Amino acid sequence: MNYGNCTPSQARKLIREGKINVPTSGICNGYAQANMAILPKDLAFDFLLFCQRNKKPCPVLDVTEVGSPIPRLTAPNADLRYDIPRYRIYRHGEMTEEVTDLAKYWTDDLVAFLLGCSFSFESPMLEDGLEVRHITDNHNVPMYRTNIECVPAGVFHGPMVVSMRPMKPADAIRAIQITTRMPFVHGAPIHLGDPAAIGIKNIDTPDFGERSEIHEGEIPVFWACGVTPQSIAMTVKPDLMITHAPGYMFITDIPNSKLAIM
Amino acid sequence: MNYGNCTPSQARKLIREGKINVPTSGICNGYAQANMAILPKDLAFDFLLFCQRNKKPCPVLDVTEVGSPIPRLTAPNADLRYDIPRYRIYRHGEMTEEVTDLAKYWTDDLVAFLLGCSFSFESPMLEDGLEVRHITDNHNVPMYRTNIECVPAGVFHGPMVVSMRPMKPADAIRAIQITTRMPFVHGAPIHLGDPAAIGIKNIDTPDFGERSEIHEGEIPVFWACGVTPQSIAMTVKPDLMITHAPGYMFITDIPNSKLAIM
Repeated sequence: MNYGNCTPSQARKLIREGKINVPTSGICNGYAQANMAILPKDLAFDFLLFCQRNKKPCPVLDVTEVGSPIPRLTAPNADLRYDIPRYRIYRHGEMTEEVTDLAKYWTDDLVAFLLGCSFSFESPMLEDGLEVRHITDNHNVPMYRTNIECVPAGVFHGPMVVSMRPMKPADAIRAIQITTRMPFVHGAPIHLGDPAAIGIKNIDTPDFGERSEIHEGEIPVFWACGVTPQSIAMTVKPDLMITHAPGYMFITDIPNSKLAIM
Repeated sequence: MNYGNCTPSQARKLIREGKINVPTSGICNGYAQANMAILPKDLAFDFLLFCQRNKKPCPVLDVTEVGSPIPRLTAPNADLRYDIPRYRIYRHGEMTEEVTDLAKYWTDDLVAFLLGCSFSFESPMLEDGLEVRHITDNHNVPMYRTNIECVPAGVFHGPMVVSMRPMKPADAIRAIQITTRMPFVHGAPIHLGDPAAIGIKNIDTPDFGERSEIHEGEIPVFWACGVTPQSIAMTVKPDLMITHAPGYMFITDIPNSKLAIM
Protein backbone atom coordinates (compact mmCIF):
# COMPACT_ATOMS: atom_id res chain seq x y z
CA MET A 1 0.00 0.00 0.00
CA ASN A 2 1.34 3.39 -1.01
CA TYR A 3 0.49 6.21 1.39
CA GLY A 4 2.46 8.82 -0.55
CA ASN A 5 -0.66 10.52 -1.87
CA CYS A 6 -2.75 10.40 1.33
CA THR A 7 -3.81 13.70 2.82
CA PRO A 8 -2.36 14.29 6.30
CA SER A 9 -5.77 13.82 7.94
CA GLN A 10 -6.32 10.52 6.08
CA ALA A 11 -2.89 9.28 7.15
CA ARG A 12 -3.42 10.34 10.77
CA LYS A 13 -6.80 8.54 10.83
CA LEU A 14 -5.12 5.32 9.59
CA ILE A 15 -2.39 5.77 12.23
CA ARG A 16 -4.99 6.35 14.95
CA GLU A 17 -6.82 3.17 13.89
CA GLY A 18 -3.57 1.20 14.03
CA LYS A 19 -3.64 0.57 10.26
CA ILE A 20 -0.34 2.38 9.67
CA ASN A 21 2.36 1.28 12.08
CA VAL A 22 5.52 1.80 10.05
CA PRO A 23 8.11 4.59 9.82
CA THR A 24 6.45 7.62 8.24
CA SER A 25 9.08 8.44 5.59
CA GLY A 26 7.31 8.53 2.22
CA ILE A 27 3.82 9.04 3.70
CA CYS A 28 1.93 12.19 2.58
CA ASN A 29 4.54 13.44 0.14
CA GLY A 30 4.90 17.20 0.24
CA TYR A 31 3.75 17.66 3.84
CA ALA A 32 6.05 18.50 6.72
CA GLN A 33 6.63 15.82 9.32
CA ALA A 34 7.73 16.71 12.83
CA ASN A 35 9.80 15.44 15.71
CA MET A 36 7.84 15.51 18.98
CA ALA A 37 8.90 16.05 22.57
CA ILE A 38 6.45 16.19 25.49
CA LEU A 39 7.59 17.62 28.81
CA PRO A 40 5.93 18.72 32.06
CA LYS A 41 4.97 22.39 32.20
CA ASP A 42 7.65 23.23 34.76
CA LEU A 43 10.35 22.45 32.16
CA ALA A 44 8.52 24.09 29.24
CA PHE A 45 10.04 27.56 29.50
CA ASP A 46 13.60 26.23 29.72
CA PHE A 47 12.96 23.87 26.81
CA LEU A 48 11.35 26.54 24.62
CA LEU A 49 14.26 28.87 25.39
CA PHE A 50 16.71 26.07 24.59
CA CYS A 51 15.00 25.64 21.20
CA GLN A 52 15.02 29.40 20.62
CA ARG A 53 18.76 29.54 21.35
CA ASN A 54 19.50 26.51 19.19
CA LYS A 55 17.26 27.10 16.21
CA LYS A 56 19.25 24.93 13.80
CA PRO A 57 18.88 21.64 15.69
CA CYS A 58 15.56 22.62 17.35
CA PRO A 59 13.29 24.39 14.85
CA VAL A 60 9.98 24.83 16.68
CA LEU A 61 6.92 24.32 14.46
CA ASP A 62 4.24 24.21 17.15
CA VAL A 63 3.81 24.18 20.93
CA THR A 64 0.54 23.03 22.48
CA GLU A 65 -1.30 24.85 25.25
CA VAL A 66 -0.55 23.34 28.67
CA GLY A 67 -2.62 20.17 29.00
CA SER A 68 -3.88 20.20 25.42
CA PRO A 69 -2.78 17.45 23.00
CA ILE A 70 -4.02 19.47 20.00
CA PRO A 71 -1.37 21.08 17.75
CA ARG A 72 -3.56 24.01 16.78
CA LEU A 73 -1.18 25.71 14.39
CA THR A 74 0.10 22.75 12.41
CA ALA A 75 -2.80 20.26 12.51
CA PRO A 76 -5.86 21.54 14.40
CA ASN A 77 -7.81 18.30 13.81
CA ALA A 78 -5.07 16.06 15.13
CA ASP A 79 -4.54 14.63 18.60
CA LEU A 80 -0.94 14.05 19.65
CA ARG A 81 -1.99 11.25 22.01
CA TYR A 82 -3.04 9.00 19.13
CA ASP A 83 -1.75 10.28 15.80
CA ILE A 84 1.87 9.10 15.89
CA PRO A 85 2.40 5.40 15.18
CA ARG A 86 4.88 4.78 17.96
CA TYR A 87 5.94 6.69 21.09
CA ARG A 88 8.74 6.33 23.59
CA ILE A 89 8.32 7.04 27.29
CA TYR A 90 11.46 8.13 29.13
CA ARG A 91 11.66 8.33 32.92
CA HIS A 92 14.72 9.94 34.49
CA GLY A 93 16.49 9.70 31.13
CA GLU A 94 15.84 5.98 30.58
CA MET A 95 13.42 4.62 27.98
CA THR A 96 10.92 2.55 29.92
CA GLU A 97 8.19 1.81 27.36
CA GLU A 98 7.48 1.97 23.63
CA VAL A 99 3.73 2.40 23.04
CA THR A 100 1.27 3.12 20.22
CA ASP A 101 -0.84 5.71 22.04
CA LEU A 102 -0.61 8.00 25.04
CA ALA A 103 -4.10 7.50 26.51
CA LYS A 104 -2.57 6.18 29.76
CA TYR A 105 0.23 8.74 29.89
CA TRP A 106 -1.25 12.12 29.03
CA THR A 107 -1.85 14.46 31.98
CA ASP A 108 -3.04 18.03 32.14
CA ASP A 109 0.35 19.49 33.02
CA LEU A 110 2.06 18.34 29.82
CA VAL A 111 3.21 20.52 26.91
CA ALA A 112 4.00 19.04 23.49
CA PHE A 113 6.64 20.54 21.21
CA LEU A 114 6.72 19.78 17.47
CA LEU A 115 10.09 20.39 15.85
CA GLY A 116 10.92 20.46 12.14
CA CYS A 117 12.47 17.41 10.53
CA SER A 118 14.95 16.88 7.73
CA PHE A 119 12.35 15.13 5.54
CA SER A 120 11.23 18.71 4.73
CA PHE A 121 14.50 19.57 3.01
CA GLU A 122 15.21 16.15 1.52
CA SER A 123 12.10 16.46 -0.56
CA PRO A 124 13.29 19.60 -2.48
CA MET A 125 16.75 18.02 -2.78
CA LEU A 126 15.27 14.97 -4.52
CA GLU A 127 13.08 17.19 -6.72
CA ASP A 128 16.21 19.05 -7.76
CA GLY A 129 17.87 15.81 -8.84
CA LEU A 130 20.27 15.38 -5.90
CA GLU A 131 20.84 11.90 -4.58
CA VAL A 132 20.10 11.40 -0.89
CA ARG A 133 22.12 8.29 -0.08
CA HIS A 134 20.08 6.83 2.80
CA ILE A 135 16.92 7.18 0.68
CA THR A 136 18.61 5.46 -2.30
CA ASP A 137 19.84 2.69 -0.01
CA ASN A 138 16.57 2.59 1.96
CA HIS A 139 17.88 2.94 5.48
CA ASN A 140 17.60 5.48 8.32
CA VAL A 141 19.85 8.56 8.07
CA PRO A 142 23.13 8.29 10.04
CA MET A 143 23.29 10.65 13.04
CA TYR A 144 26.23 11.54 15.29
CA ARG A 145 26.82 13.29 18.59
CA THR A 146 29.35 16.08 18.01
CA ASN A 147 31.69 18.12 20.19
CA ILE A 148 29.67 21.25 19.37
CA GLU A 149 28.00 22.41 22.57
CA CYS A 150 24.49 23.76 22.22
CA VAL A 151 23.82 27.10 23.90
CA PRO A 152 22.46 26.04 27.31
CA ALA A 153 19.11 27.26 28.68
CA GLY A 154 18.01 26.61 32.24
CA VAL A 155 18.50 22.91 32.95
CA PHE A 156 19.06 21.96 29.31
CA HIS A 157 22.60 21.62 27.96
CA GLY A 158 24.67 19.20 25.90
CA PRO A 159 26.14 18.53 22.48
CA MET A 160 24.50 18.98 19.10
CA VAL A 161 23.50 15.88 17.13
CA VAL A 162 23.98 16.05 13.34
CA SER A 163 22.70 14.02 10.42
CA MET A 164 25.06 13.20 7.55
CA ARG A 165 24.54 12.91 3.79
CA PRO A 166 27.50 12.05 1.51
CA MET A 167 27.67 14.22 -1.63
CA LYS A 168 29.93 15.19 -4.48
CA PRO A 169 31.24 18.75 -3.88
CA ALA A 170 29.03 20.29 -6.59
CA ASP A 171 25.97 18.58 -5.12
CA ALA A 172 26.99 19.72 -1.63
CA ILE A 173 27.06 23.32 -2.89
CA ARG A 174 23.59 22.92 -4.39
CA ALA A 175 22.32 21.29 -1.19
CA ILE A 176 23.63 24.29 0.79
CA GLN A 177 21.62 26.59 -1.47
CA ILE A 178 18.46 24.51 -1.14
CA THR A 179 18.63 24.21 2.67
CA THR A 180 19.54 27.90 3.08
CA ARG A 181 16.03 28.58 1.79
CA MET A 182 14.66 26.60 4.75
CA PRO A 183 15.99 28.39 7.85
CA PHE A 184 13.01 27.14 9.89
CA VAL A 185 13.76 23.45 9.27
CA HIS A 186 17.46 23.09 10.19
CA GLY A 187 18.71 25.48 7.46
CA ALA A 188 22.16 25.26 5.88
CA PRO A 189 24.63 22.56 6.98
CA ILE A 190 26.80 23.23 10.02
CA HIS A 191 29.89 21.41 8.65
CA LEU A 192 31.29 19.58 5.65
CA GLY A 193 34.37 17.42 5.19
CA ASP A 194 36.53 16.13 8.05
CA PRO A 195 34.28 14.40 10.63
CA ALA A 196 37.00 14.68 13.31
CA ALA A 197 36.77 18.47 13.19
CA ILE A 198 33.38 18.25 14.93
CA GLY A 199 34.33 15.41 17.22
CA ILE A 200 33.11 12.44 15.17
CA LYS A 201 35.65 9.67 15.67
CA ASN A 202 34.31 7.07 13.28
CA ILE A 203 31.98 8.01 10.45
CA ASP A 204 31.09 4.32 9.99
CA THR A 205 29.55 3.97 13.45
CA PRO A 206 26.78 6.54 13.84
CA ASP A 207 25.31 7.14 17.31
CA PHE A 208 21.74 6.94 15.91
CA GLY A 209 20.33 5.59 12.63
CA GLU A 210 22.43 3.59 10.19
CA ARG A 211 25.73 3.97 8.34
CA SER A 212 25.68 5.56 4.86
CA GLU A 213 28.20 4.51 2.22
CA ILE A 214 30.52 7.39 1.21
CA HIS A 215 31.62 6.90 -2.40
CA GLU A 216 34.95 7.92 -3.97
CA GLY A 217 35.02 11.69 -4.55
CA GLU A 218 32.24 12.41 -2.05
CA ILE A 219 32.44 14.42 1.16
CA PRO A 220 30.22 14.04 4.22
CA VAL A 221 27.86 17.00 4.72
CA PHE A 222 26.44 17.55 8.22
CA TRP A 223 23.14 19.18 9.19
CA ALA A 224 21.93 20.04 12.69
CA CYS A 225 19.50 17.27 13.63
CA GLY A 226 16.14 17.21 15.38
CA VAL A 227 17.30 14.31 17.53
CA THR A 228 19.40 16.86 19.48
CA PRO A 229 16.68 17.79 21.99
CA GLN A 230 15.99 14.11 22.76
CA SER A 231 19.68 13.50 23.26
CA ILE A 232 19.90 16.60 25.48
CA ALA A 233 16.86 15.55 27.49
CA MET A 234 18.45 12.16 28.12
CA THR A 235 21.39 14.04 29.63
CA VAL A 236 19.11 16.19 31.78
CA LYS A 237 17.05 13.17 32.91
CA PRO A 238 13.66 14.81 33.50
CA ASP A 239 11.19 12.75 35.57
CA LEU A 240 9.10 12.25 32.43
CA MET A 241 9.65 12.92 28.76
CA ILE A 242 7.70 11.45 25.87
CA THR A 243 8.92 11.43 22.26
CA HIS A 244 8.01 9.80 18.97
CA ALA A 245 9.99 6.63 18.19
CA PRO A 246 12.82 7.37 15.71
CA GLY A 247 11.45 7.49 12.16
CA TYR A 248 7.82 7.42 13.37
CA MET A 249 7.07 11.12 12.99
CA PHE A 250 4.02 13.33 13.37
CA ILE A 251 2.50 14.30 10.00
CA THR A 252 1.39 17.95 9.93
CA ASP A 253 -1.00 19.78 7.59
CA ILE A 254 1.81 22.16 6.55
CA PRO A 255 3.17 21.78 2.99
CA ASN A 256 6.99 21.64 3.02
CA SER A 257 7.02 24.50 0.56
CA LYS A 258 5.48 26.77 3.24
CA LEU A 259 8.57 26.20 5.38
CA ALA A 260 10.84 27.63 2.69
CA ILE A 261 11.43 31.38 2.63
CA MET A 262 11.76 31.23 -1.16
CA MET B 1 29.86 64.09 17.28
CA ASN B 2 29.60 61.10 14.97
CA TYR B 3 29.15 57.78 16.76
CA GLY B 4 28.80 55.80 13.53
CA ASN B 5 32.23 54.22 13.89
CA CYS B 6 32.11 53.49 17.63
CA THR B 7 32.35 49.88 18.69
CA PRO B 8 29.23 48.65 20.50
CA SER B 9 31.08 48.50 23.84
CA GLN B 10 32.35 52.08 23.41
CA ALA B 11 28.85 53.30 22.59
CA ARG B 12 27.30 51.44 25.52
CA LYS B 13 29.92 52.95 27.86
CA LEU B 14 29.02 56.46 26.66
CA ILE B 15 25.32 55.64 27.08
CA ARG B 16 25.93 54.30 30.60
CA GLU B 17 27.83 57.48 31.51
CA GLY B 18 24.95 59.61 30.19
CA LYS B 19 27.10 61.03 27.38
CA ILE B 20 24.85 59.63 24.64
CA ASN B 21 21.19 60.37 25.27
CA VAL B 22 19.79 60.53 21.74
CA PRO B 23 17.98 58.04 19.48
CA THR B 24 20.44 55.32 18.49
CA SER B 25 19.85 55.28 14.73
CA GLY B 26 23.23 55.83 13.04
CA ILE B 27 25.28 54.75 16.08
CA CYS B 28 27.68 51.79 15.58
CA ASN B 29 27.01 51.30 11.89
CA GLY B 30 26.93 47.65 10.93
CA TYR B 31 25.86 46.33 14.34
CA ALA B 32 22.38 45.04 15.15
CA GLN B 33 20.24 47.12 17.47
CA ALA B 34 17.41 45.57 19.43
CA ASN B 35 13.98 46.31 20.82
CA MET B 36 13.75 45.40 24.51
CA ALA B 37 10.88 44.16 26.64
CA ILE B 38 11.24 43.22 30.31
CA LEU B 39 8.54 41.18 32.01
CA PRO B 40 8.12 39.28 35.28
CA LYS B 41 9.09 35.61 35.13
CA ASP B 42 5.48 34.42 35.46
CA LEU B 43 4.69 35.92 32.04
CA ALA B 44 7.96 34.85 30.40
CA PHE B 45 6.80 31.51 28.97
CA ASP B 46 3.67 33.01 27.42
CA PHE B 47 5.68 35.90 25.98
CA LEU B 48 8.42 33.67 24.58
CA LEU B 49 5.77 31.43 23.03
CA PHE B 50 4.02 34.50 21.61
CA CYS B 51 7.31 35.54 19.99
CA GLN B 52 7.89 32.02 18.69
CA ARG B 53 4.42 31.98 17.11
CA ASN B 54 4.82 35.46 15.65
CA LYS B 55 8.39 35.37 14.43
CA LYS B 56 7.99 38.15 11.87
CA PRO B 57 6.98 40.93 14.30
CA CYS B 58 8.83 39.37 17.28
CA PRO B 59 12.24 38.04 16.19
CA VAL B 60 13.95 36.98 19.44
CA LEU B 61 17.68 37.74 19.52
CA ASP B 62 18.34 37.09 23.21
CA VAL B 63 16.54 36.25 26.45
CA THR B 64 18.27 36.81 29.78
CA GLU B 65 18.34 34.30 32.62
CA VAL B 66 15.68 35.09 35.24
CA GLY B 67 16.97 37.96 37.39
CA SER B 68 20.04 38.62 35.26
CA PRO B 69 20.32 41.90 33.31
CA ILE B 70 23.19 40.50 31.19
CA PRO B 71 22.38 39.61 27.55
CA ARG B 72 24.93 36.81 27.37
CA LEU B 73 24.46 35.84 23.75
CA THR B 74 24.34 39.25 22.10
CA ALA B 75 26.48 41.46 24.38
CA PRO B 76 28.00 39.58 27.32
CA ASN B 77 29.72 42.73 28.68
CA ALA B 78 26.56 44.82 28.68
CA ASP B 79 24.05 45.49 31.44
CA LEU B 80 20.48 46.06 30.35
CA ARG B 81 19.79 48.20 33.44
CA TYR B 82 22.14 50.96 32.23
CA ASP B 83 23.06 50.51 28.58
CA ILE B 84 19.97 51.89 26.85
CA PRO B 85 19.67 55.70 26.80
CA ARG B 86 16.02 55.86 27.74
CA TYR B 87 13.51 53.40 29.20
CA ARG B 88 9.76 53.38 29.66
CA ILE B 89 8.04 51.87 32.69
CA TYR B 90 4.50 50.61 32.12
CA ARG B 91 2.21 49.61 34.98
CA HIS B 92 -1.08 47.92 34.14
CA GLY B 93 -0.65 49.00 30.51
CA GLU B 94 -0.05 52.68 31.24
CA MET B 95 3.32 54.41 30.86
CA THR B 96 4.12 55.84 34.27
CA GLU B 97 7.76 56.91 33.95
CA GLU B 98 10.48 57.52 31.36
CA VAL B 99 13.91 56.99 32.92
CA THR B 100 17.58 56.73 31.94
CA ASP B 101 18.47 53.66 34.01
CA LEU B 102 16.73 50.79 35.77
CA ALA B 103 18.73 50.72 39.01
CA LYS B 104 15.56 51.40 41.03
CA TYR B 105 13.34 49.08 38.97
CA TRP B 106 15.27 45.87 38.39
CA THR B 107 14.26 42.91 40.56
CA ASP B 108 15.40 39.31 40.58
CA ASP B 109 12.22 37.93 39.05
CA LEU B 110 12.55 39.87 35.77
CA VAL B 111 13.40 38.47 32.33
CA ALA B 112 14.58 40.72 29.49
CA PHE B 113 13.81 39.93 25.85
CA LEU B 114 15.82 41.50 23.03
CA LEU B 115 14.02 41.47 19.68
CA GLY B 116 15.44 42.28 16.25
CA CYS B 117 14.89 45.71 14.77
CA SER B 118 14.41 47.01 11.25
CA PHE B 119 17.67 49.02 11.38
CA SER B 120 19.29 45.64 10.58
CA PHE B 121 17.63 45.41 7.18
CA GLU B 122 17.66 49.11 6.35
CA SER B 123 21.43 49.04 6.39
CA PRO B 124 21.76 46.49 3.52
CA MET B 125 18.98 48.34 1.64
CA LEU B 126 20.97 51.58 1.78
CA GLU B 127 24.16 49.76 0.79
CA ASP B 128 22.31 48.38 -2.22
CA GLY B 129 21.35 51.89 -3.31
CA LEU B 130 17.69 51.84 -2.25
CA GLU B 131 16.21 54.97 -0.76
CA VAL B 132 14.69 54.61 2.70
CA ARG B 133 12.36 57.59 2.89
CA HIS B 134 12.32 58.24 6.65
CA ILE B 135 16.12 58.14 6.68
CA THR B 136 16.32 60.59 3.74
CA ASP B 137 13.82 62.86 5.47
CA ASN B 138 15.37 62.29 8.91
CA HIS B 139 12.32 61.28 10.89
CA ASN B 140 11.12 58.17 12.73
CA VAL B 141 9.62 55.37 10.59
CA PRO B 142 5.79 55.44 10.34
CA MET B 143 4.13 52.50 12.12
CA TYR B 144 0.50 51.34 12.03
CA ARG B 145 -1.75 48.95 13.93
CA THR B 146 -3.29 46.55 11.41
CA ASN B 147 -6.32 44.24 11.36
CA ILE B 148 -3.98 41.23 11.17
CA GLU B 149 -4.36 39.29 14.41
CA CYS B 150 -1.18 37.81 15.82
CA VAL B 151 -1.35 34.14 16.80
CA PRO B 152 -2.24 34.33 20.52
CA ALA B 153 -0.18 32.60 23.24
CA GLY B 154 -1.37 32.39 26.84
CA VAL B 155 -2.42 35.88 27.93
CA PHE B 156 -0.87 37.62 24.92
CA HIS B 157 -3.03 38.50 21.92
CA GLY B 158 -3.73 41.45 19.66
CA PRO B 159 -3.04 42.95 16.25
CA MET B 160 0.26 43.14 14.40
CA VAL B 161 1.98 46.52 14.08
CA VAL B 162 3.75 47.22 10.78
CA SER B 163 6.33 49.74 9.64
CA MET B 164 5.97 51.32 6.19
CA ARG B 165 8.49 52.40 3.58
CA PRO B 166 7.31 53.95 0.28
CA MET B 167 9.10 52.54 -2.78
CA LYS B 168 8.95 52.38 -6.55
CA PRO B 169 7.77 48.90 -7.61
CA ALA B 170 11.23 47.82 -8.86
CA ASP B 171 12.78 48.95 -5.56
CA ALA B 172 10.04 47.15 -3.63
CA ILE B 173 10.95 43.93 -5.44
CA ARG B 174 14.62 44.40 -4.57
CA ALA B 175 13.73 45.20 -0.96
CA ILE B 176 11.74 41.94 -0.80
CA GLN B 177 14.83 40.05 -1.97
CA ILE B 178 17.08 41.78 0.56
CA THR B 179 14.77 41.26 3.53
CA THR B 180 14.04 37.64 2.55
CA ARG B 181 17.71 37.01 3.36
CA MET B 182 17.02 38.20 6.94
CA PRO B 183 14.29 35.87 8.24
CA PHE B 184 15.49 36.42 11.82
CA VAL B 185 14.97 40.21 11.71
CA HIS B 186 11.38 40.61 10.42
CA GLY B 187 12.08 38.96 7.02
CA ALA B 188 10.13 39.76 3.85
CA PRO B 189 7.29 42.34 3.93
CA ILE B 190 3.83 41.16 4.96
CA HIS B 191 1.94 43.44 2.51
CA LEU B 192 2.39 45.97 -0.27
CA GLY B 193 -0.03 48.39 -1.90
CA ASP B 194 -3.52 49.17 -0.57
CA PRO B 195 -3.26 50.14 3.14
CA ALA B 196 -7.00 49.47 3.65
CA ALA B 197 -6.47 45.78 2.85
CA ILE B 198 -4.70 45.39 6.21
CA GLY B 199 -6.98 47.72 8.11
CA ILE B 200 -5.01 50.97 7.84
CA LYS B 201 -7.58 53.74 7.40
CA ASN B 202 -5.30 56.71 6.83
CA ILE B 203 -1.71 56.23 5.70
CA ASP B 204 -0.98 59.86 6.65
CA THR B 205 -1.70 59.35 10.35
CA PRO B 206 0.51 56.57 11.67
CA ASP B 207 -0.20 55.12 15.13
CA PHE B 208 3.50 55.37 16.08
CA GLY B 209 6.43 57.31 14.59
CA GLU B 210 5.95 59.94 11.89
CA ARG B 211 4.33 60.19 8.47
CA SER B 212 6.45 59.41 5.38
CA GLU B 213 5.82 61.19 2.08
CA ILE B 214 4.68 58.77 -0.67
CA HIS B 215 5.82 60.11 -4.06
CA GLU B 216 4.04 59.69 -7.41
CA GLY B 217 4.58 56.16 -8.74
CA GLU B 218 5.48 54.72 -5.33
CA ILE B 219 3.62 52.07 -3.34
CA PRO B 220 3.70 51.61 0.42
CA VAL B 221 5.54 48.46 1.52
CA PHE B 222 4.75 47.06 4.97
CA TRP B 223 7.01 45.04 7.25
CA ALA B 224 6.08 43.34 10.54
CA CYS B 225 7.34 45.66 13.27
CA GLY B 226 9.12 45.10 16.58
CA VAL B 227 6.73 47.53 18.27
CA THR B 228 4.09 44.78 18.06
CA PRO B 229 4.95 43.14 21.40
CA GLN B 230 4.82 46.49 23.20
CA SER B 231 1.47 47.24 21.64
CA ILE B 232 0.24 43.75 22.60
CA ALA B 233 1.51 44.13 26.14
CA MET B 234 -0.38 47.40 26.46
CA THR B 235 -3.52 45.43 25.58
CA VAL B 236 -2.73 42.71 28.13
CA LYS B 237 -1.88 45.28 30.86
CA PRO B 238 0.67 43.32 32.89
CA ASP B 239 1.40 44.70 36.38
CA LEU B 240 4.85 45.72 35.18
CA MET B 241 6.53 45.90 31.80
CA ILE B 242 9.66 47.84 30.95
CA THR B 243 10.71 48.72 27.39
CA HIS B 244 13.22 50.97 25.65
CA ALA B 245 11.83 54.36 24.60
CA PRO B 246 10.97 54.38 20.86
CA GLY B 247 14.12 54.93 18.81
CA TYR B 248 16.40 54.49 21.86
CA MET B 249 17.48 50.93 21.15
CA PHE B 250 19.92 48.48 22.71
CA ILE B 251 23.14 48.16 20.68
CA THR B 252 24.35 44.55 20.46
CA ASP B 253 27.77 43.12 19.57
CA ILE B 254 26.22 41.22 16.61
CA PRO B 255 27.10 42.46 13.11
CA ASN B 256 23.94 42.86 11.00
CA SER B 257 25.52 40.61 8.39
CA LYS B 258 25.40 37.70 10.88
CA LEU B 259 21.61 38.01 10.97
CA ALA B 260 21.39 37.36 7.23
CA ILE B 261 21.19 33.79 6.02
CA MET B 262 23.06 34.80 2.87
